[in-house]
Amino acid sequence: MSEIPKIQKGCIFYENGGEIIYKDIPVPVPKANEILINVKYSGVCHTDLHAWHGDWPLDTKLPLVGGHEGAGVVVAKGANVTNFEIGDYAGIKWLNGSCMGCEYCQQGAEPNCPDADLSGYTHDGSFQQYATADAVQAARIPKDADLAAIAPILCAGVTVYKALKTADLRPGQWVAVSGAGGGLGSLAIQYATAMGLRVLAIDGGDEKGDLCKELGAEVYVDFMKEKNIVKTIQDATNGGPHGVINVSVSELAISQSCDYVRALGKVVLVGLPAGAVCKSPVFQQVVKSIEIKGSYVGNRQDTAEAIDFFVRGKVHCPFKVVGLSELPHVFKLMAEGKILGRYVLDTTC
Amino acid sequence: MSEIPKIQKGCIFYENGGEIIYKDIPVPVPKANEILINVKYSGVCHTDLHAWHGDWPLDTKLPLVGGHEGAGVVVAKGANVTNFEIGDYAGIKWLNGSCMGCEYCQQGAEPNCPDADLSGYTHDGSFQQYATADAVQAARIPKDADLAAIAPILCAGVTVYKALKTADLRPGQWVAVSGAGGGLGSLAIQYATAMGLRVLAIDGGDEKGDLCKELGAEVYVDFMKEKNIVKTIQDATNGGPHGVINVSVSELAISQSCDYVRALGKVVLVGLPAGAVCKSPVFQQVVKSIEIKGSYVGNRQDTAEAIDFFVRGKVHCPFKVVGLSELPHVFKLMAEGKILGRYVLDTTC
Amino acid sequence: MSEIPKIQKGCIFYENGGEIIYKDIPVPVPKANEILINVKYSGVCHTDLHAWHGDWPLDTKLPLVGGHEGAGVVVAKGANVTNFEIGDYAGIKWLNGSCMGCEYCQQGAEPNCPDADLSGYTHDGSFQQYATADAVQAARIPKDADLAAIAPILCAGVTVYKALKTADLRPGQWVAVSGAGGGLGSLAIQYATAMGLRVLAIDGGDEKGDLCKELGAEVYVDFMKEKNIVKTIQDATNGGPHGVINVSVSELAISQSCDYVRALGKVVLVGLPAGAVCKSPVFQQVVKSIEIKGSYVGNRQDTAEAIDFFVRGKVHCPFKVVGLSELPHVFKLMAEGKILGRYVLDTTC
Amino acid sequence: MSEIPKIQKGCIFYENGGEIIYKDIPVPVPKANEILINVKYSGVCHTDLHAWHGDWPLDTKLPLVGGHEGAGVVVAKGANVTNFEIGDYAGIKWLNGSCMGCEYCQQGAEPNCPDADLSGYTHDGSFQQYATADAVQAARIPKDADLAAIAPILCAGVTVYKALKTADLRPGQWVAVSGAGGGLGSLAIQYATAMGLRVLAIDGGDEKGDLCKELGAEVYVDFMKEKNIVKTIQDATNGGPHGVINVSVSELAISQSCDYVRALGKVVLVGLPAGAVCKSPVFQQVVKSIEIKGSYVGNRQDTAEAIDFFVRGKVHCPFKVVGLSELPHVFKLMAEGKILGRYVLDTTC
Repeated sequence: MSEIPKIQKGCIFYENGGEIIYKDIPVPVPKANEILINVKYSGVCHTDLHAWHGDWPLDTKLPLVGGHEGAGVVVAKGANVTNFEIGDYAGIKWLNGSCMGCEYCQQGAEPNCPDADLSGYTHDGSFQQYATADAVQAARIPKDADLAAIAPILCAGVTVYKALKTADLRPGQWVAVSGAGGGLGSLAIQYATAMGLRVLAIDGGDEKGDLCKELGAEVYVDFMKEKNIVKTIQDATNGGPHGVINVSVSELAISQSCDYVRALGKVVLVGLPAGAVCKSPVFQQVVKSIEIKGSYVGNRQDTAEAIDFFVRGKVHCPFKVVGLSELPHVFKLMAEGKILGRYVLDTTC
Repeated sequence: MSEIPKIQKGCIFYENGGEIIYKDIPVPVPKANEILINVKYSGVCHTDLHAWHGDWPLDTKLPLVGGHEGAGVVVAKGANVTNFEIGDYAGIKWLNGSCMGCEYCQQGAEPNCPDADLSGYTHDGSFQQYATADAVQAARIPKDADLAAIAPILCAGVTVYKALKTADLRPGQWVAVSGAGGGLGSLAIQYATAMGLRVLAIDGGDEKGDLCKELGAEVYVDFMKEKNIVKTIQDATNGGPHGVINVSVSELAISQSCDYVRALGKVVLVGLPAGAVCKSPVFQQVVKSIEIKGSYVGNRQDTAEAIDFFVRGKVHCPFKVVGLSELPHVFKLMAEGKILGRYVLDTTC
Repeated sequence: MSEIPKIQKGCIFYENGGEIIYKDIPVPVPKANEILINVKYSGVCHTDLHAWHGDWPLDTKLPLVGGHEGAGVVVAKGANVTNFEIGDYAGIKWLNGSCMGCEYCQQGAEPNCPDADLSGYTHDGSFQQYATADAVQAARIPKDADLAAIAPILCAGVTVYKALKTADLRPGQWVAVSGAGGGLGSLAIQYATAMGLRVLAIDGGDEKGDLCKELGAEVYVDFMKEKNIVKTIQDATNGGPHGVINVSVSELAISQSCDYVRALGKVVLVGLPAGAVCKSPVFQQVVKSIEIKGSYVGNRQDTAEAIDFFVRGKVHCPFKVVGLSELPHVFKLMAEGKILGRYVLDTTC
Repeated sequence: MSEIPKIQKGCIFYENGGEIIYKDIPVPVPKANEILINVKYSGVCHTDLHAWHGDWPLDTKLPLVGGHEGAGVVVAKGANVTNFEIGDYAGIKWLNGSCMGCEYCQQGAEPNCPDADLSGYTHDGSFQQYATADAVQAARIPKDADLAAIAPILCAGVTVYKALKTADLRPGQWVAVSGAGGGLGSLAIQYATAMGLRVLAIDGGDEKGDLCKELGAEVYVDFMKEKNIVKTIQDATNGGPHGVINVSVSELAISQSCDYVRALGKVVLVGLPAGAVCKSPVFQQVVKSIEIKGSYVGNRQDTAEAIDFFVRGKVHCPFKVVGLSELPHVFKLMAEGKILGRYVLDTTC
């Protein structure tokens, strides 16, 4: 094993919205409960853009190395770490650590811990070659996994998988995925299909339609073409989908999902649009007895399950690899809505 | 048994918002699947006011005899009725009948049946001395029950009991009841207490506060006095209630309940304010992972259970008996928000 | 439409274990709540053998026309039937009717109704050309379905589908099917696979192993070859399956399933061996916190869902068609354990 | 704060079934993840008797200081402990520690962890004045709690509370407690009552009957007097209890509970009789669709909830305080079945 350097390359910014600089920064030293991961690849997520902009009602640390979809190899560990060995594959995910003692942690709902520590947000993340991670929360990655391909699973995959679990549907029922052609959506289609659900995909344009169908969607609804989207969706699903996964961050799309969902159905909110409000007419929600449920990333169990689906070949994320130094360009494309699938950064260049 | 008359007294209106006339009307004849109930007492519900006004997005029959909290005695039955005998006590409830064949009826979710027939709305109800009711859905009332006291249980009681079931809380957890001092709210406090829950009651004024505490609430929050209602409620419940029952129809109160509910908590919508919208900030709902759930009356099982709590003496509804002919006056008081508890109509006068 | 005859062919016996006679019998007349089905095809189930033998702790009617997997066409209906039209496809299933008023029927658990009426057991069933069926419980079959192929779904399919729902597993988890190569087992493998589960199949012999793998099982365990079946199963599933479907009626196999199931796992009993006892060591059951759950056919919702999987092409039942007159021979083969898949009777010969 | 001594009094045995010696032993030193508790009181549980006898299929450490219901004060802590402060009240419970990394720990099911470390069994327990405990698992006890009274809650209370949660009943349903007059049973009655359940208590003798009724049971069934216990219980509960908590370790009583439980009901196994087998006739279990569920102590969340019921005054455990030195005598009484309620040891004498 090569020696751990003192200096590495990373992308860092010093104020929210300020310049993202690719430069030499120190390699962090793991605390007693942490592992040091040599990050090989890192996905880029919309959340990273929010962290940079600082437009969420939650402060980031500053300066900040972002990133929370990192896959790599354990190269060092603190004195109290027993569940990882040097050389193991490990993943950096959104939840870096939690108190493990509060009522939420006791229930396995660590993402809801009030003292949650967040990778690439309140803890320096995966946009660097070497990153520290809490050993309890770090994801376990099987030895033969493709580290570039698995990186986006660590946040995007876990998030949509958890959203599907939250929808609490039975195999054979219909699930609509709103925003199905994007990075999260394309994973949601595949997880849903692997879970025995019937998928109706919603997005705009023929190219996205082809992608959705190829990934397993039975029906594609193009919101740019349909005059009456509620009726179209209800007709296609014989009364409305039993569940909806809103990965789209459009406030209108979210509110429409309360209209077209089947009676007794579940509308899941999973994207995090800054400032958006979900509006549901009370009369309709009561009479149809629908549920609107917030779903927030996943816990360790969800992570292990989401990774297992990937390892068994049930889901893959279309991705494109570019160098870590190109992060500013990737953010630009993302802000312009020009990304299909996921960008993955190679930390060596 | 006395003979069934051809003519009876009832309260009828011929157009929505038109005069409510107390007059002689024909006694209806039960169909093959119906029972004829000699209604002794009928509760008066906010829904009856909406039926009269016609301000819901659902048409009433016209002319209409309202009322859907009727308790009485079976005096005749159709040829196919096997589950009621002449002389049995029976109750008229909101859901008069459903198709029993659709996906909702198959699951026992008859209130969500697209062909639901509604007492005092699409089917003449309990504001008359003799009313017909579908035998499958009519409530079974034990022989020794107090018919005046049980009347409000048939809608108000079942509705809040179902809402509490929908909240899906564990004994020992906190439930907030918003609008706790009214007819529904005072029942919600008692059902919740009998279910082992800890109740925080929210309403306005000292009189309602005294009532709430007497009925079992541990904490009373006066929304007219509190400056920061969210903080007050979260402090009193060590982090927010695990569930909220919104019997208040205030749009503001409903939206606030999304703020003060505990992470992982459930906000139940159960009142039916015409036109109100539940607004929940997406970011907060996701990060707290809360659920907003519509709860709509109850099915036959819920009804049987709600009645059982009443029969066992666990809940009682404070009520005042007046004559059926006084219905217009009761509606006037209700519209003015002057009713504490429930009015029950005696059909003999 | 051809006229309904007065006389038809059917298989009848006059005492339990007595001769099964293929002969002319009267066509039954539907009651007000019944439909008359021209049965085209009927599956043959182990339960039919028990009905004939009379070896269950529940009396059959006598004389009896057995059969409860009948698929055909509605040719007449009683005065109160609104949910079927003449010409519709309809299915006869194990539960012919229930009281629709008891606590079990109210919950949608009609099979548990104390007054359940059973096709081919307490009500003449599908081993005849024309059979009556309660319209509420009769299965709805889509117009373009293959009536011979769907017949076994009406009991065998529904039963294993319900058992899988009872096991309450998540997609991605392991389910063991004990007795996987038989009629029920081969359907269980397919339903489980369509529900996103990983299947370990248990049976004896290479031929059954090939069948199981072809139908979707990931692993096949041959109980005739394995020395330590518990260890083999636990090793193959990385700690034991999360659920077990016991369609095998071997008492030993059932008890073993309590040994190899994973901690927190669910053992489902679904076969009905006369006299067998499930034995579970208390210490082990507590420390592993496992559940042993009885699953009994399915309700109307389960039936509709099981049929939907079939119609969507997710499951098929290997079957062989013979004439209704050959029923005694089919029973003989069944008693000798010589049937692979399912026999379906053509009622025209 | 007084200094921590090097030597303390404790009860120790050197081989299973060998003499229990009350003597001077060293005070243990907490590891980095442990707290040192000055045990003030310790309950005595049947499990302690099994640990001494060594008659369970799980080896104890030797020599062993038993005890796993210890309540006391934190007097020292390891370097990594952040969730306890010196002076806090803390409790020793059955599960001393677990790996926190396996699939069971990830789900919050730490008692099912294959590497579970057990107080008074694989880790020296509370039958000494100073004991070490894993800080993650140690119970948090509010500052004003009565340490003698709360000691039995830490195992007996948590165990029956968890069993009631496992039964998964709704308020208003019937639960039978078999063995209701003993230490576990008397707590089960109280927890069940506080959870809104209706309790039928089963035990032998008038004295136990009086105790059960006083604690909240609606019905008492004396198994020594009843000829037909199944019929008696089903009649008293209008068809059988919806759930049964088997704290009795009688194999016959356990099997009977499968007979008298209501259809769709749940039989919970919670006692740990060495060698006993639960026998359930398959036919009956399937047709009634009942569940037999093992329930094993509780996790941290269950513990916190069980303690909360105690602190709120909903349950109390009748107990008698004797000196730690009298443990051998207490074991003798226990083995003879002469204990009503719980013995609590005062570690100062």
